[in-house]
Amino acid sequence: MLADFEGLRNASLRYLTGHPMDALLLLSCTAEALLVAWDLPLAERRAQVEELLPYGRFDRSVYRTLKELLSERGIRRAELSGAFPFPLVQELGQALPRTELLCRREGIDEELAELRSVKDTGELEALRQACSISNALVDELEALLAQRGEASETELALYLEAQARARGAEGMSFDTLAAGPGRSFAIHAFPPYTAGSFGARGLSILDFGVCWEGYRSDVTLTALRAPLSRQQRQMSEAVAEAYELGLSLVKPGADPEQIGASVDRFLAGRGYPMPHGLGHGIGLEAHEAPMLRPPRPSGPAAGRPNALRPGMVLTIEPGAYHPEAGGVRLENDLLVTERGAEPLTRARFLRLGG
Amino acid sequence: MLADFEGLRNASLRYLTGHPMDALLLLSCTAEALLVAWDLPLAERRAQVEELLPYGRFDRSVYRTLKELLSERGIRRAELSGAFPFPLVQELGQALPRTELLCRREGIDEELAELRSVKDTGELEALRQACSISNALVDELEALLAQRGEASETELALYLEAQARARGAEGMSFDTLAAGPGRSFAIHAFPPYTAGSFGARGLSILDFGVCWEGYRSDVTLTALRAPLSRQQRQMSEAVAEAYELGLSLVKPGADPEQIGASVDRFLAGRGYPMPHGLGHGIGLEAHEAPMLRPPRPSGPAAGRPNALRPGMVLTIEPGAYHPEAGGVRLENDLLVTERGAEPLTRARFLRLGG
Repeated sequence: MLADFEGLRNASLRYLTGHPMDALLLLSCTAEALLVAWDLPLAERRAQVEELLPYGRFDRSVYRTLKELLSERGIRRAELSGAFPFPLVQELGQALPRTELLCRREGIDEELAELRSVKDTGELEALRQACSISNALVDELEALLAQRGEASETELALYLEAQARARGAEGMSFDTLAAGPGRSFAIHAFPPYTAGSFGARGLSILDFGVCWEGYRSDVTLTALRAPLSRQQRQMSEAVAEAYELGLSLVKPGADPEQIGASVDRFLAGRGYPMPHGLGHGIGLEAHEAPMLRPPRPSGPAAGRPNALRPGMVLTIEPGAYHPEAGGVRLENDLLVTERGAEPLTRARFLRLGG
Repeated sequence: MLADFEGLRNASLRYLTGHPMDALLLLSCTAEALLVAWDLPLAERRAQVEELLPYGRFDRSVYRTLKELLSERGIRRAELSGAFPFPLVQELGQALPRTELLCRREGIDEELAELRSVKDTGELEALRQACSISNALVDELEALLAQRGEASETELALYLEAQARARGAEGMSFDTLAAGPGRSFAIHAFPPYTAGSFGARGLSILDFGVCWEGYRSDVTLTALRAPLSRQQRQMSEAVAEAYELGLSLVKPGADPEQIGASVDRFLAGRGYPMPHGLGHGIGLEAHEAPMLRPPRPSGPAAGRPNALRPGMVLTIEPGAYHPEAGGVRLENDLLVTERGAEPLTRARFLRLGG
């Protein structure tokens, strides 16, 4: 049993049923799917399931839905997503003492994460489309900055969204992060964009993605406006080398945690230990398995370690940050192939004249 | 102990510390706050806490952070947010058998929700600012539609965001929902906006909000383009009357669940039982306490029922939906005063000529 509601999002519901959001799914061992949907007309158009019920029947309560479905249908053994809150699972166990409830960290969520990590043909088509639009946007942005010199962070972020949607995208993958030289030191700029300048002297970071039928690209480019300080040049060289190192390590059979650790060591050796992971899978979520970073015991969405396999799509995004010098990050999306990695996106350093 | 990370958002962290996101908070009974932040430079600028630690020290793992803080500091009794996932709390309990761990549905989260539901002066100023920008945007939108007749959903959504940011807003409160006549039947249109027309003949719904220093307005207007069908006229009259009924019931001492139930009954009597709650508090989240709807046993963010009090800020948003006729919704933000309610926003029906 999985749920996808505000505060408890779970893209596996869309993966398994086609229904985009706000629903609860009961999947039986014989592969029959029962969907309880908040918006029934939407579900009738989109969900590919055996049975459909309105969430209103259960007073729009996750707890009541779980409890009543388990009792009504005489289910003796059920696994609940490990994302369900502690009190809800505890109360459910007390209310249904004769039902065996499983709720594990490395249970159904991990199995679904693994299943989702290798993309099928239809998923790859959607991702290629998202990546292709991202590439067009990077080219446009480069032309725009070459012509205009600089622009406000907000102007660029909204320009990207308008252009992506004009090309048929469902939306952006996440809030675009546009951080000019004064803010690029932060890993994730807050707020995501402001009226401040992007592309002025120094280092500006732009991290964005395009969503096509639910599938999300994720790229980061850095605009480098000369003249740069010696430190800024060293940071950008370190990140460029770390990127090439990461790219060379992505191939079937490689251990994603080890790839992350290798690039971490390289950047730490240059004086810039990385405050975030090297990369992550992309798909219906902007961050999904596999994770190219050391495992985090019992963290939410920890991701089971497993070797890279053909059909996985993931990002590599080495970055270096300094409170005064600013930040540099370069991120592209790669498809793991039989022999190595095929880059799907073309984010790059944009070198702007001094 | 509270955490705010991807997949586990909790605005109470920002409420208590000023730090906007991606952190873990340990608050002692003697009101000392220890913040473990992913982005330490950002926390150094924003967090008002007694002690600050980098998340990297705990391998950026929620589980390890909780476990090590509890052991290192010899804490014997701790309450964890009821939003923490079941397996994490269970494993923590096993790893720390001598620590008494509380993790309740109606525990610290509910206390914080109640605390946050009554706004202080600074919070009210931020909300008034968010509402004032929303009002300007409604006026602009009315002028734009009067002049141009119709526009694409995407065009309107991005126009609103550009205008809000030009006025200094931190961003939008949530993804703007713009649904033209072909999509307004859905409670929450999916995707939020498309290339389709807004403002063509029939009923179009626009639901948006403006975020000012973290505080979020939330309004919905309906554009009615004549000629309307008899059913569309009846739906809009029912929603207008339901809105007036709701407005008249908002006052100190009133039971928010009862207000919701009264308006539900009214609309059901007109043939349009409401598929969503009548309204909700607003603040650092677009949906927070108090909830103007029947209680949902054990649902996440159920919200403890309590009487309305001066200083609460909430929305009322009656709506009626029909697969062919479309949807009508009207939503404004109200401040509960000593005597009744002060409307902070001015969303309304936009009647467009036939």
